[in-house]
Amino acid sequence: MKLLSFIRPDGIATAGRLDDDRVVDLGRPLRTLLGDPIPEGTPRGADVFHLGEVTLQPVVPEPSKIIAAPVNYRDHQAEMNEAYHIDALGIFLKAPSSVLAHQGTIRLPYTDRRFDQEGELALVIGRPGRDITVADALKHVAGYTCLLDITMRGGEDRSTRKSFDTFTPVGPYLVTPDEVGPLESLTLRTWVGDELRQDADIKDLIWSVPRLIAYASSVMTLRTGDIITTGTPAGVGTITEGDRITVDIGHVGRLEATVSTQGAVPCPTKGAHRGPVPPKTVTPTRSK
Amino acid sequence: MKLLSFIRPDGIATAGRLDDDRVVDLGRPLRTLLGDPIPEGTPRGADVFHLGEVTLQPVVPEPSKIIAAPVNYRDHQAEMNEAYHIDALGIFLKAPSSVLAHQGTIRLPYTDRRFDQEGELALVIGRPGRDITVADALKHVAGYTCLLDITMRGGEDRSTRKSFDTFTPVGPYLVTPDEVGPLESLTLRTWVGDELRQDADIKDLIWSVPRLIAYASSVMTLRTGDIITTGTPAGVGTITEGDRITVDIGHVGRLEATVSTQGAVPCPTKGAHRGPVPPKTVTPTRSK
Repeated sequence: MKLLSFIRPDGIATAGRLDDDRVVDLGRPLRTLLGDPIPEGTPRGADVFHLGEVTLQPVVPEPSKIIAAPVNYRDHQAEMNEAYHIDALGIFLKAPSSVLAHQGTIRLPYTDRRFDQEGELALVIGRPGRDITVADALKHVAGYTCLLDITMRGGEDRSTRKSFDTFTPVGPYLVTPDEVGPLESLTLRTWVGDELRQDADIKDLIWSVPRLIAYASSVMTLRTGDIITTGTPAGVGTITEGDRITVDIGHVGRLEATVSTQGAVPCPTKGAHRGPVPPKTVTPTRSK
Repeated sequence: MKLLSFIRPDGIATAGRLDDDRVVDLGRPLRTLLGDPIPEGTPRGADVFHLGEVTLQPVVPEPSKIIAAPVNYRDHQAEMNEAYHIDALGIFLKAPSSVLAHQGTIRLPYTDRRFDQEGELALVIGRPGRDITVADALKHVAGYTCLLDITMRGGEDRSTRKSFDTFTPVGPYLVTPDEVGPLESLTLRTWVGDELRQDADIKDLIWSVPRLIAYASSVMTLRTGDIITTGTPAGVGTITEGDRITVDIGHVGRLEATVSTQGAVPCPTKGAHRGPVPPKTVTPTRSK
């Protein structure tokens, strides 16, 4: 099952189920749907729209948290020259206000700083919890989606560098675990324009999805609709005006965004010459 | 005017106005009240409780963001041996799920890590905004409150070290700007038990309250109910089982919390021997 947050042609924000190119309005925001079983058929009286008639919203328009993994692939740790990975860094937070819908525009705020694309597999929490075990972790997942963790390089705190408005494209929809299948067989690819920059196997995550959920829930209570994004593999690189970015993760979907520098100003903070610096351009190589 | 979030004797969560020791139920969560003018008298049919009858909640029980200032007093920068302050670090995020009510219990999660108290002046956003100017910033403030930014020392990301459940005591209430008066004349004091650890003037903030709001709103859209906490002065120090912590900021109020290590376990992440380390104990000295 694929779930969407969208604006109806009459302007009402709601969520629904995608059946081929038909959207069945389930009459409630996605966050409030994820705790209950989702109806399979078309509920009596439900409105149905053609996909082309509706305006997609970010999968969860107002998540209570976006939890992210700082360094969770070894090839990304290597390209960043990072001494540490997630088991020494823990997790970080992105602002909920940074979410962007599929085919939205990423707005780079500054003229004089470097910004990179980071393609990632993300999940949305269904059943809330605290101190969830690794064995139980996947029972708390409502579904999976593609996510771009757009990042400013430099010495500012991660929450600043990754939380500008529009810096979390997420979507196009939420795919329930039964349709995604085994996570170990998923492949993630990110293109900027026609250049394939990231090409990775989800099985290469340092902390697997269950371990990441278990750890995150040992730090902070997870709520329905919270987004957890699992980290990016090697191949991050600079983005600029007019770039089209695409993330593809098999059954999970294909997320697109474009980049604009309109309205950008000089950066008011002084982190430009600090922090880890990945190479400027990357040609992905697969180890297999 | 003082505003409270609380649980009524019948178990209903709501918000109200504190008149001496009477709580006037305004019938809505605090977040939804802050956009509109708050009624002065007792609205027709409003329930009124004695303060002792109700259970205080965190001032904003579910903020969409908690935005914090990493190093925003020079004496704290010195005690931390930090090369940089807020103008190179920007802001960071604490998890909304970390809020704790006045007189709540801070639960330290680990047996083998250092935890410190950090007393701070915080504000809550009323009118939402993006790219707010310094001149307009204070028009977006619904009120002020006391906050404790409880912190684990080490090399994990700030969002991890400061976001454990219960790590953001906030309250006891929200005081509207007219009752707080000029921010420059406010003094902040933090005690652990009977030991005065922090004794500072709010006028010594490196980035003033208006500048902090303006910057934060240039990074991320501010929403009604967002909490912005302004940073801690020198005098942070270790806390442990049974400690009573008190933050006093004149007209803004007096926030109390106690510390428990019940249920603590060994830390699963490896940041213990990294990150800035302040002195173990501190005797505050005033420069004036």
